[in-house]
Amino acid sequence: MKKASTEAAKKIQSIFSSGHHRRHRRKPPGQIPGTAIHTGVQRLDNVLMTVHDFDESHYDIIPIQKIEKSEPYLQNKSKTWIQVRGLHDIEKLKTVWNYFELHPLIQEDIVSTSQRPKVEHYPNAVYIVLRMIKQSEQDNGNFKVQTEQISIVLGENYVLSFQESDEPIFDPILKRLELTTTRLRKLGPDYLAYALSDNIVDHYFHAIDIISDNIEKIEEEILDEPKQEQLQKIHALRRDLIYFRKSVWSLRDGINSLIRDDVDLISSDVKVFLRDLYDHIVQVVDSLETNREMVFGLYDMYMSGLSNRMNEVMKVLTIIATIFIPLTFIAGIYGMNFDPEVSPFNMPELNWYFGYPFSLGLMLLMTGGMIYYFKKKNWF
Amino acid sequence: MKKASTEAAKKIQSIFSSGHHRRHRRKPPGQIPGTAIHTGVQRLDNVLMTVHDFDESHYDIIPIQKIEKSEPYLQNKSKTWIQVRGLHDIEKLKTVWNYFELHPLIQEDIVSTSQRPKVEHYPNAVYIVLRMIKQSEQDNGNFKVQTEQISIVLGENYVLSFQESDEPIFDPILKRLELTTTRLRKLGPDYLAYALSDNIVDHYFHAIDIISDNIEKIEEEILDEPKQEQLQKIHALRRDLIYFRKSVWSLRDGINSLIRDDVDLISSDVKVFLRDLYDHIVQVVDSLETNREMVFGLYDMYMSGLSNRMNEVMKVLTIIATIFIPLTFIAGIYGMNFDPEVSPFNMPELNWYFGYPFSLGLMLLMTGGMIYYFKKKNWF
Amino acid sequence: MKKASTEAAKKIQSIFSSGHHRRHRRKPPGQIPGTAIHTGVQRLDNVLMTVHDFDESHYDIIPIQKIEKSEPYLQNKSKTWIQVRGLHDIEKLKTVWNYFELHPLIQEDIVSTSQRPKVEHYPNAVYIVLRMIKQSEQDNGNFKVQTEQISIVLGENYVLSFQESDEPIFDPILKRLELTTTRLRKLGPDYLAYALSDNIVDHYFHAIDIISDNIEKIEEEILDEPKQEQLQKIHALRRDLIYFRKSVWSLRDGINSLIRDDVDLISSDVKVFLRDLYDHIVQVVDSLETNREMVFGLYDMYMSGLSNRMNEVMKVLTIIATIFIPLTFIAGIYGMNFDPEVSPFNMPELNWYFGYPFSLGLMLLMTGGMIYYFKKKNWF
Amino acid sequence: MKKASTEAAKKIQSIFSSGHHRRHRRKPPGQIPGTAIHTGVQRLDNVLMTVHDFDESHYDIIPIQKIEKSEPYLQNKSKTWIQVRGLHDIEKLKTVWNYFELHPLIQEDIVSTSQRPKVEHYPNAVYIVLRMIKQSEQDNGNFKVQTEQISIVLGENYVLSFQESDEPIFDPILKRLELTTTRLRKLGPDYLAYALSDNIVDHYFHAIDIISDNIEKIEEEILDEPKQEQLQKIHALRRDLIYFRKSVWSLRDGINSLIRDDVDLISSDVKVFLRDLYDHIVQVVDSLETNREMVFGLYDMYMSGLSNRMNEVMKVLTIIATIFIPLTFIAGIYGMNFDPEVSPFNMPELNWYFGYPFSLGLMLLMTGGMIYYFKKKNWF
Amino acid sequence: MKKASTEAAKKIQSIFSSGHHRRHRRKPPGQIPGTAIHTGVQRLDNVLMTVHDFDESHYDIIPIQKIEKSEPYLQNKSKTWIQVRGLHDIEKLKTVWNYFELHPLIQEDIVSTSQRPKVEHYPNAVYIVLRMIKQSEQDNGNFKVQTEQISIVLGENYVLSFQESDEPIFDPILKRLELTTTRLRKLGPDYLAYALSDNIVDHYFHAIDIISDNIEKIEEEILDEPKQEQLQKIHALRRDLIYFRKSVWSLRDGINSLIRDDVDLISSDVKVFLRDLYDHIVQVVDSLETNREMVFGLYDMYMSGLSNRMNEVMKVLTIIATIFIPLTFIAGIYGMNFDPEVSPFNMPELNWYFGYPFSLGLMLLMTGGMIYYFKKKNWF
Repeated sequence: MKKASTEAAKKIQSIFSSGHHRRHRRKPPGQIPGTAIHTGVQRLDNVLMTVHDFDESHYDIIPIQKIEKSEPYLQNKSKTWIQVRGLHDIEKLKTVWNYFELHPLIQEDIVSTSQRPKVEHYPNAVYIVLRMIKQSEQDNGNFKVQTEQISIVLGENYVLSFQESDEPIFDPILKRLELTTTRLRKLGPDYLAYALSDNIVDHYFHAIDIISDNIEKIEEEILDEPKQEQLQKIHALRRDLIYFRKSVWSLRDGINSLIRDDVDLISSDVKVFLRDLYDHIVQVVDSLETNREMVFGLYDMYMSGLSNRMNEVMKVLTIIATIFIPLTFIAGIYGMNFDPEVSPFNMPELNWYFGYPFSLGLMLLMTGGMIYYFKKKNWF
Repeated sequence: MKKASTEAAKKIQSIFSSGHHRRHRRKPPGQIPGTAIHTGVQRLDNVLMTVHDFDESHYDIIPIQKIEKSEPYLQNKSKTWIQVRGLHDIEKLKTVWNYFELHPLIQEDIVSTSQRPKVEHYPNAVYIVLRMIKQSEQDNGNFKVQTEQISIVLGENYVLSFQESDEPIFDPILKRLELTTTRLRKLGPDYLAYALSDNIVDHYFHAIDIISDNIEKIEEEILDEPKQEQLQKIHALRRDLIYFRKSVWSLRDGINSLIRDDVDLISSDVKVFLRDLYDHIVQVVDSLETNREMVFGLYDMYMSGLSNRMNEVMKVLTIIATIFIPLTFIAGIYGMNFDPEVSPFNMPELNWYFGYPFSLGLMLLMTGGMIYYFKKKNWF
Repeated sequence: MKKASTEAAKKIQSIFSSGHHRRHRRKPPGQIPGTAIHTGVQRLDNVLMTVHDFDESHYDIIPIQKIEKSEPYLQNKSKTWIQVRGLHDIEKLKTVWNYFELHPLIQEDIVSTSQRPKVEHYPNAVYIVLRMIKQSEQDNGNFKVQTEQISIVLGENYVLSFQESDEPIFDPILKRLELTTTRLRKLGPDYLAYALSDNIVDHYFHAIDIISDNIEKIEEEILDEPKQEQLQKIHALRRDLIYFRKSVWSLRDGINSLIRDDVDLISSDVKVFLRDLYDHIVQVVDSLETNREMVFGLYDMYMSGLSNRMNEVMKVLTIIATIFIPLTFIAGIYGMNFDPEVSPFNMPELNWYFGYPFSLGLMLLMTGGMIYYFKKKNWF
Repeated sequence: MKKASTEAAKKIQSIFSSGHHRRHRRKPPGQIPGTAIHTGVQRLDNVLMTVHDFDESHYDIIPIQKIEKSEPYLQNKSKTWIQVRGLHDIEKLKTVWNYFELHPLIQEDIVSTSQRPKVEHYPNAVYIVLRMIKQSEQDNGNFKVQTEQISIVLGENYVLSFQESDEPIFDPILKRLELTTTRLRKLGPDYLAYALSDNIVDHYFHAIDIISDNIEKIEEEILDEPKQEQLQKIHALRRDLIYFRKSVWSLRDGINSLIRDDVDLISSDVKVFLRDLYDHIVQVVDSLETNREMVFGLYDMYMSGLSNRMNEVMKVLTIIATIFIPLTFIAGIYGMNFDPEVSPFNMPELNWYFGYPFSLGLMLLMTGGMIYYFKKKNWF
Repeated sequence: MKKASTEAAKKIQSIFSSGHHRRHRRKPPGQIPGTAIHTGVQRLDNVLMTVHDFDESHYDIIPIQKIEKSEPYLQNKSKTWIQVRGLHDIEKLKTVWNYFELHPLIQEDIVSTSQRPKVEHYPNAVYIVLRMIKQSEQDNGNFKVQTEQISIVLGENYVLSFQESDEPIFDPILKRLELTTTRLRKLGPDYLAYALSDNIVDHYFHAIDIISDNIEKIEEEILDEPKQEQLQKIHALRRDLIYFRKSVWSLRDGINSLIRDDVDLISSDVKVFLRDLYDHIVQVVDSLETNREMVFGLYDMYMSGLSNRMNEVMKVLTIIATIFIPLTFIAGIYGMNFDPEVSPFNMPELNWYFGYPFSLGLMLLMTGGMIYYFKKKNWF
């Protein structure tokens, strides 16, 4: 049993994909600030680049190999979104970064994939780091949550997006882009940047639902029987919630700064929508805090469950012991070897005609009394 | 018993109508922001619209089928309140929204009925989301609290209100409108918007009373006998209080922004009243926090109740065991089979004339001593 | 016992006068804001009005029946304080309110006697709500604290004070008014308003002392023997402290706003004194928070007291059981019926000359060993 | 034992001089604000006044009887520090106060010796209240901390200091004044006021060390054996730390206001030093908060110590009981009186040749099994 | 065992180098503010001074004995970094300080090596105090973290760095300085000051990893078997985390002030990098807070581990006792000495042919029933 629990400790079940707390470990200390080093995992063979060029009248999707190919689309008056997937090939990414003259610190953050979500203002761009949260069903039917860093760079007439895998997380946006009447087509690149962010925050609600489900499941298990494993699960949930909440919190501050500060790249029309996004984020934070309270409640439940169990065990012991100890005492009395023949005072009961039934009756009486007492005390 | 408790876990008793924590689940992710989708329950067959047109000299109530019918009332100089009940028929609502040129995000929030209370400023309108709290008596005599989202849109010369059901929650306002001398008739639509909000906040005090009653009831139950179910109730209360408090808190911020910010639609006369409303909300928040402290106290009570129980059980066991174990030992002594005939040292008591009474006396003495000891220790 | 504790639960001992938490229940929802409805208790037969007219050269006290009688005193250049006692006769109060043109919300708050302390600025007046705290000795020698709402309205050349009873809470002020050289006579009505408030805050220190005494008393009781009732008392203290603290906190904010904001009615001379008052309030808040920590400490003490008790009980059980169980076993051995005559191996001790003394010695030895072990473990 | 613990409760060991929490009790309520009443203890026979007059070229110390004697020193261009010791003789102090035209509220605070540390700005002076903390060794070798209120008034060309006793707390300053090259002699009275304050804050670090030592001592005691007295000590430490922290916190705010606000009496040169003082105070606050966390840790240690003890007691009981109960049962079996002669099935063991050794062997085997089981469970 | 635990208490394992909490003890109180007294440890024989002179075209490293030797490098247009190692020789340091006219308070803080990290603005310099954190492997394979105070003074055209030892903590910077194209060579001394600070903050992530590892190790140990030592480790971790967090927090405030305030010495280019540094610090704070939560979780785990153990012990006792007590009772019954010959009612079983097997069967039946009951209760 010892072994099992030790191993269990090694795999505390986080609902987030394993290792995310570790991934905060950055590149070795002493690196030049602004050095782009990919700290994530290679998930694609090549870096994929797609140009989405659109305005109210047209929408073109052009896969490109070299960033220079996007030149004509950037020159024209329509809005351009360049979607980059795959972060492992720094050299190729550098061609993109240099083309758009991104600040070295942006470059560093795009590929160091354990950033906290944030919004940063640079002279020629707004840099938004988001964390996509994707559910994936596991073998045991449980849901896991996997996170992936998404970087969005909003320039004057373009939006760049960077992601590690080619998960179809922006599909809803692509579908909406096909409709001519959507705001996406009418409004500027700032609205696109908003829409991409909103799309990601939308998924947070599902992550929260998964956490809520987990909490309820653990609650039921604890009510069934409190076990050490549940405490570990509570422990892991607690950590997940802190991690999640901190992420969302820093995103909240970032979005807020976009609304309050006088950022040229963001039009006031889009600010109204950002306010709505901000509102959603606050709702997420609220839910996370409620969930955190619930997790504290789980611990209380666990501890009181243990106490309840102990009480039950003690009651069984006490009932058995208090019923049988006096009986055994009576049996002990009549097992004494005083010699009835020496004196009439020496255990005359032994020679009574109904001596044995009398002693059994005495025992029955005591048992009855005890049971009555326990009934009155509500112990059964 | 296991089964029962598991089922109990599934129906943790929230005093709020079931499922409200769930309702935070929004429409599927990836929707276009500003898409109006009703996330609540259809409670009426049709969307009901009523125009309340009034000024100091008249008060007319006109049910209408099409929003265009309200045109004459909006044109005249009197104030107009259009009360809309039923949120399921998006098409019909859209005629209203378009008529008043409401922002798509307002439209979305009106029908997505799990918004946090909030106040939002738009160029041509102030949008207020409130949560009505209605008590309803249950079969078991307990009170439940049901919540319903109320949206109020304050324009320059009109107020729109949207609600899901036709619960008569605004009846007090209707009655007051019939009186010619009320401020409602004298002051502008901003005062009406205030009055509607104040009417809703007034009900919060009752919800708090219900929660307080619940706390006291659980307290009594715990003092009677601590049971697992109570812990679940405490758990649920805790969640309810967080939920309630967060709702009221966000409303508080909204009302505060109306007072502080320079909103054209709100006159300074009405701001004095808003300050009063703000004060009421703060009082609600205070009460909720006090209640939350009380709920923490309940948990402490529960745990110490368990400990007390355990102490009691242990005392019973200890008293019985410490009284009878020595007695049984004495009985055991005289049950030994040493042969008195072999030696005068071998249990001569067995052949004493008063041997048996002597042993019984010895036992009585020990029992008396024990009882005296326990009395002194205050164990009875 | 069950009964007793249930009843006890019903009367949790708050040191504040019973029911104050309840009194937050306001008039029925849906009332017109600004409707004056007395929510307190009638304590006087009639509304008493007294005009205090004074300046550096004179001090007159004139009981009046109608507010119009105060006209000459308000017209002259001296300062005028109109003390109103009794809040049940709304009609009569209305004559006063209308005379001074008080805002309907002030009117409402004066008679709805469960307001949080607060300071509100109106165009022609500053409205201060305070809560008087009076100790009253109870039959059992304990002190109770009773609270009463005091309203002070500071106008340009007058001060109005409203209270429910005719408790002589302002007697120190009246005495000081008789002295010609006091600041009260020299400075304006703003100083009087300050002096009245300061007089009330002064009593808070005594309320805190009573709470501190209570805490110490409970502490001693817990150290003596932890009982369920103490937990209830702790529970009640906790609630009282939250309630008290919230009240004082809102007063603190109010006084602060008087100091910081540019209020015409308050001279800078008086602001220095208000700063002193503010300081006292902060001291009260500090003491309350210290007390709150102490109350948390009480709970810790209670729980560890329970654990200590349990330990003690368990030790007694363990000592008795571990001493006697082995002895009983030995007695049991020699109570076995192996036939010594069948074989020399069958319990030859039974026929030893010193068999019985030997067995008793064996028992003594074991007892001694056990006692030595427990002594070493520090269990006695 | 009951008695002892009750008495112990009465003398909860605060490391601060006894009664300081009590001293917050002020003069009776209803006093005129600004009334100087000494709320401390008389520690000197007479009020001692000393004039320290100094500049870069000279340093004179002149004991005076009447404040008028200081006139020449105040008139000249050098800086003057008037040190007043003894606060019981209000009349004499009044001559000083009136001479310097101190605000009545300053007067009141100087002699009401349980003020929170604070800094107050008056038109002609800055008033600083500090709390000196002096260690004093006790009979039992423990250190106690005694506090004394020090008031410093900084005027345009003078500094006044007021203290209750003539403890040589300013000796380091006096020594430094004798050196011609020190900043004390060069800079203005604001630097002197700073130096006096800094001198007092310096002692706080020692008070913190004493608290830290106490915490460590209690920790060792708890690890040795958790006792009720330790909990009381923890309780007292907790209170001390809150009290200390609140004092230092309010001082921190005061010093901060001196740095931020535009105070004429403080030169920018001295502000740099005040910033350093501020930094020290923040360090004190940090240490206090760390200590507070440690004290919470002590409680956790205490509770888990109790649980550990209980576990140990239970283990002893369980080991003894589980070893001997089965043995006693076997002895009981062979103590039954079935008649072997009636039937060959009736306890034939009794007549076995090796019956007794067999039964003893059976017992040994069981004991061995039990001991093996407990060893495996790590119970020894 | 008592002894061992006491000694253990004396060496609570802090992962930070021993005594750091103590080192807050400063020089004796009453010292002149600005007096430079080395409060650390002498780690070098002599004070080492090295001039690093560089610009885009050259990079020279010149060890110097006297600070005057640096004159030519300071005069030219290139940037100069003077690295000072060794803080014990105040006289020598004074020559440096006087040369650069550092404020006495800077001087004091450089050598009093237990400063909180901070950033201070002086007219001619920015003074930054940092705390280097170095891991060092211990004999037992555990990592220890040692801290060392680093002071950085940023002047108009120079940077000074002060450290106690000659640990090669700035080696990465030295290597980067050798590359002609780095920003270090291009940008001003403000960038160098940033780079030095960033280098130090980079190491914090490793310290956090060590703490995380410690937490996980303790977690596994607790799951294995909760022991008193673990609680002490938790205790120490808690203290370390508070200490670490407070340090980083104050650094965070300092860096923030550099970004927000209008500091001439910091160019806006470098501010972008400082913002990045700020971001890293916030990440460190976040991780520390997450870790702190985890440590609280450890305590919960420890306590519930104790309860679990107790439950297990109790279960063993209860199972053994409830199985054997009834059996012993039956054996006791048939050990009674009622005389079967006196009456047919007196224990006829004793003379039954299958009396003994019947009684054994009865016992087996009871045992089976008990075991079934315990199985059903899930006690095995």
